[in-house]
Amino acid sequence: MEIVCIGNELLIGKTVNTNATWLANRITCLGGEVKTIITVGDELEEIRRGLDYALNRKPDLIITTGGLGPTFDDKTLEGVAYAMGRPLEINQDALNMVRRKYEAYYKEGRMEKVEITAARRKMAILPSGSKPLYNPVGTAPGVALESNKTRIVILPGVPAEMKAIFDESVAPLIRERGEKRFYEREIHVDGIMESTIAPLIDEVMRESPGVYIKSHPKGEERKPHLDIHFSTNADNEEEAEKKLESAIKKLRELVDREKDNR
Amino acid sequence: MEIVCIGNELLIGKTVNTNATWLANRITCLGGEVKTIITVGDELEEIRRGLDYALNRKPDLIITTGGLGPTFDDKTLEGVAYAMGRPLEINQDALNMVRRKYEAYYKEGRMEKVEITAARRKMAILPSGSKPLYNPVGTAPGVALESNKTRIVILPGVPAEMKAIFDESVAPLIRERGEKRFYEREIHVDGIMESTIAPLIDEVMRESPGVYIKSHPKGEERKPHLDIHFSTNADNEEEAEKKLESAIKKLRELVDREKDNR
Repeated sequence: MEIVCIGNELLIGKTVNTNATWLANRITCLGGEVKTIITVGDELEEIRRGLDYALNRKPDLIITTGGLGPTFDDKTLEGVAYAMGRPLEINQDALNMVRRKYEAYYKEGRMEKVEITAARRKMAILPSGSKPLYNPVGTAPGVALESNKTRIVILPGVPAEMKAIFDESVAPLIRERGEKRFYEREIHVDGIMESTIAPLIDEVMRESPGVYIKSHPKGEERKPHLDIHFSTNADNEEEAEKKLESAIKKLRELVDREKDNR
Repeated sequence: MEIVCIGNELLIGKTVNTNATWLANRITCLGGEVKTIITVGDELEEIRRGLDYALNRKPDLIITTGGLGPTFDDKTLEGVAYAMGRPLEINQDALNMVRRKYEAYYKEGRMEKVEITAARRKMAILPSGSKPLYNPVGTAPGVALESNKTRIVILPGVPAEMKAIFDESVAPLIRERGEKRFYEREIHVDGIMESTIAPLIDEVMRESPGVYIKSHPKGEERKPHLDIHFSTNADNEEEAEKKLESAIKKLRELVDREKDNR
């Protein structure tokens, strides 16, 4: 699975890309595997390049986030249409969704009666062959479409809206396809340098098939404090716990032996 | 300029990619322009793909971050060598840097005398034609190399080390090349929906060449609160202020007129 993030604010360092982290974490925990996260600007050619990169990998699923709103510089739908060589056309289901949203806001007395202006209509102009995804918390619908065997899901960049559409329309798809679930554990080790523990981690990884171990140095190398992250995919929690527990135990033994030998 | 981030922890959503945000912000403020941020896992083939994407754009500069440490799964140097078709070889300057670091730690009495083990030596095995970059706060040196007209700078993933090497060895390069500087302003607008302000922003952007304006909805569409971000490149602060001030004034006028017409 691939994530394509669209937004100039990410490329000028104005916004931290917490959307990508949230999506990656959710997908991983649902049993999916994210291979690339690519961030591009709000320009047609850039969106096309980013999407091409993702499509060329022939993944099951590509998720894009950002650039779905009503403003002129929200170019995601245009960029996806361009990348896939499909025309943009008004989608009647999407237009109905947008219209009903504004009617509901009006009925709740939260806003004046609004016209479906060109800017609002834009949210319902989708690449040919698209299906709109209901947005439980905002106005712009998400969009799903297929290209060969890849499903492309287009989500807004506003975090609450992205998360709501993902949970409602995307999570069930991933859970259905993913056979295994992702499990993780973390331990902390003090007083041993990353370069000293490196060969010990390698040894444990060789002896623990399917367990991935990564050290994250937190202190300085001279005053070492390491977070050691263990992760694995498994059919169930019991199996995962067994694999992770065994690897943690092995590493702790090797670390203790190393310290004793000083 | 392109940023390539390397690390499985980013793809499982364990770590928020604040390194990319920091780099993007610093580069932008120094007058550079980041076109893509691509995040890949700690695998040779993935690093090659990500780097190929960046190289194909023929940028002045590519910065990679992550995967430079001593552990087995730190594969960045191997991946860069593979992508560029260059052999890996021991770099004597880099080995001296690593050796001096450990000697200094020992002299400061902060750690026992250490051997240059295979794991430590690994930090000095660089793609042919590389130049090591001094790491003021950690052990693994950064690495610089050239491919045609692209300079590739390889930085560690530990934020303090990445920032220190960037500030010492990379920032001067970007400042030198960048002719213009980046300036930004932000205003807040309440009580108007993003879809209502969209055509007004378009109008101001058409009338303000070189000023980029983006709305970021913060409330819900029904209780709208918008951050409006204005940015531009300019030779100096005075010129930038004039351009930004004029665009902000125009937008405020249009928003007030819109509210009056209700």
